[in-house]
Amino acid sequence: MNDFNKYLSDVVETVNNKLKLYMNKASFPGRESSGFDVMLNAMSYSLEDGGKRIRPFLCVEFCRLFGGNTEAAYAPACAIEMVHTYSLIHDDLPCMDDDDIRRGKPSNHIKFGYANALLAGDALLTLAFETIAGADGLAADIKNRVTYELSVAAGPSGMIAGQVMDLDNEGKNAPIETVRQTDILKTGKMICASGRIGSIVAEADEKQLKTAQEYCENIGLAFQVVDDILDVTSSDEVLGKPVGSDDSNNKSTYVTLLGLDGAKKYARELTDKAIESVKDYDNNDMLISLAGYLCDRLN
Amino acid sequence: MNDFNKYLSDVVETVNNKLKLYMNKASFPGRESSGFDVMLNAMSYSLEDGGKRIRPFLCVEFCRLFGGNTEAAYAPACAIEMVHTYSLIHDDLPCMDDDDIRRGKPSNHIKFGYANALLAGDALLTLAFETIAGADGLAADIKNRVTYELSVAAGPSGMIAGQVMDLDNEGKNAPIETVRQTDILKTGKMICASGRIGSIVAEADEKQLKTAQEYCENIGLAFQVVDDILDVTSSDEVLGKPVGSDDSNNKSTYVTLLGLDGAKKYARELTDKAIESVKDYDNNDMLISLAGYLCDRLN
Repeated sequence: MNDFNKYLSDVVETVNNKLKLYMNKASFPGRESSGFDVMLNAMSYSLEDGGKRIRPFLCVEFCRLFGGNTEAAYAPACAIEMVHTYSLIHDDLPCMDDDDIRRGKPSNHIKFGYANALLAGDALLTLAFETIAGADGLAADIKNRVTYELSVAAGPSGMIAGQVMDLDNEGKNAPIETVRQTDILKTGKMICASGRIGSIVAEADEKQLKTAQEYCENIGLAFQVVDDILDVTSSDEVLGKPVGSDDSNNKSTYVTLLGLDGAKKYARELTDKAIESVKDYDNNDMLISLAGYLCDRLN
Repeated sequence: MNDFNKYLSDVVETVNNKLKLYMNKASFPGRESSGFDVMLNAMSYSLEDGGKRIRPFLCVEFCRLFGGNTEAAYAPACAIEMVHTYSLIHDDLPCMDDDDIRRGKPSNHIKFGYANALLAGDALLTLAFETIAGADGLAADIKNRVTYELSVAAGPSGMIAGQVMDLDNEGKNAPIETVRQTDILKTGKMICASGRIGSIVAEADEKQLKTAQEYCENIGLAFQVVDDILDVTSSDEVLGKPVGSDDSNNKSTYVTLLGLDGAKKYARELTDKAIESVKDYDNNDMLISLAGYLCDRLN
C-alpha cells in the first residue's frame, strides 16, 4: 500500500466513524415503533457500506490545501456523503433507473422495500443539513455558506437538473454536449461543491475557490468518462454492477461518442488539467494522486 | 369577511408571491432540457396550489408576537411550506399512502408521473434550505438556527419518524397513545418548528420559545383530531378528498378511539389550551382567531 492509498483509507475510516456518530446523534423518538428500526437500518445500509468517499475526501483535502483545520471539515464532508447516498437510493428506485444492484449488493428498495427506501433517502438528505447546522467548531457564517453551497449543488439547478436531463436523454442518442451538460449537473455539481465546501471551511479566498472549482470540474468529468469506459471494459464482478448497461439502455456515452481510445485520451486530458490547476500549492500531493487514482481505477 | 379572514388571506397572498419568487430565483441551468420544464411545473403545481398556509402563517405570526421584523420571517416561512409540500408529494406516492387526489386535484405523480413527482419532492426539500441560507435581511447565526430547527423537525427524529410510525400502524388498531405519538411526530414537529422558527427570527427568549412550542403543540394535535372528525362528518366535495378513507384503511383515529363527541370535546380542549398559552401577549388576536378557525373548519 503506497502513501496515497494509506492516506485515503485513513480519511475514509475517519469519515465512516463520523457518519456513524452523526447517525446516532439524533434522538430518534420514534424508536419504539418497530418500523423505525427498519428505517434506521435502511439509512445505515446505504450510508455505511462501500462507496469510495471521494466527495468527503475532496472536502477534507481542499480544506488542508488551503491551510484550514481539517477536523472541522468532517461534518460538512459527512453531510455531502449523506446527500450523495440519498441520491443513489432514489436513483435506484423503480420509477427512476430501476437498478436492483448497487455496489455488488441488493439496492436499498430491494432490501427494505420502496417506502423505506424513499424515506431513508429523504431522511439522509434532511440529516445532512442538520449535521452542518449542528456542527461544532464551525462559525455560524461558515455553516450558513456551506448549507447554501450544498443546497444549490444538490437542488433543482444542480444535481436534480442533471437527473431530470438524464431521464430525458434516454433512448434519444443525445449529442456529446448534452451528455457533458448532464454529467456536469448530475455528478459534477456535487463534486465541485465538495472541494468548494472544504475551501470555505478553510476560509479560502476567491482565487483558491476557483482552483478548487477547476480541479473538481475536471476530475468530475474524468470520473464519468472512466465510468463509461469501465461499462464496456470491466466485468460484473470487478465493477460490482452489471457491465454493458449503457449499451442495453441505448444511452449515449463518451465511448459511443468518442470511441474507446478517444474516451481514454479525453479522461487523461481532464486528469492532467486537474493536476495542473493545483500545481502551485504545497500539500497538493494527495490531490495529484487522487486524480491519477480515479483515472486509472478498475471499478 | 371578518378581520381575521382578511388578515390571513393577506399573509397567504404574500406567502404565495414569495414562493413564486424563490422558485424563480434559482438559475435552473437545465432549462434547455425539455424534461426540466416538466419538473418545474411539477414543483409549482404542488407548491402554488391550494394549501391553507398554516405553517408559514404561524412563522410570521410568532415573529410578530415577539416583536420581530415579519418581513424577515417570510423566507423561513416559505422554506417551511416547501418542506411541507415535498412531504405531501412523497406521501401520496404509490409506495406510501397511494393517494390519487390531493386538495381536489390529481396528485403530483398522477399528473406528472412517478419520477418527476419523486424529484419534485426532493427538489423542494433541497430548495427549502437554499431559501433559508440565501435569505436577505437575516443574520447568519439566525439562518443557521433556522436551518437546524427545520432539519430536526423534518428529519428522522421528527416528521420522517412519524411517517414511518404511520406506515407501521396500518391495520393494527393502534392504541391512542401510539396514534398521538405518530401525529406529534408526523405533523406536530413541523407545526411546532413553524412557530419556533418565527420566534427565532424575532430573537425570542427561552420563555417565548416555550410559549410558541405550547401553542403549536396544542393546535397541531387539534388539527389532527379535526381531520379525523371531518373524515366521518364531511363530504368529498367540501373536503377535497375522499371521506371515509380512515375507515376503509382500518386506521385507528381519534373518532374510533374517543367517539365523535369525545373527539369534538378533545379538539376544543386542545384549542382552549393553545389560546391560554398566548393570553399574556399583546398582538395575540390573530393567533387566538387561528386556533378557533382551525377547530371549527369544514375542510
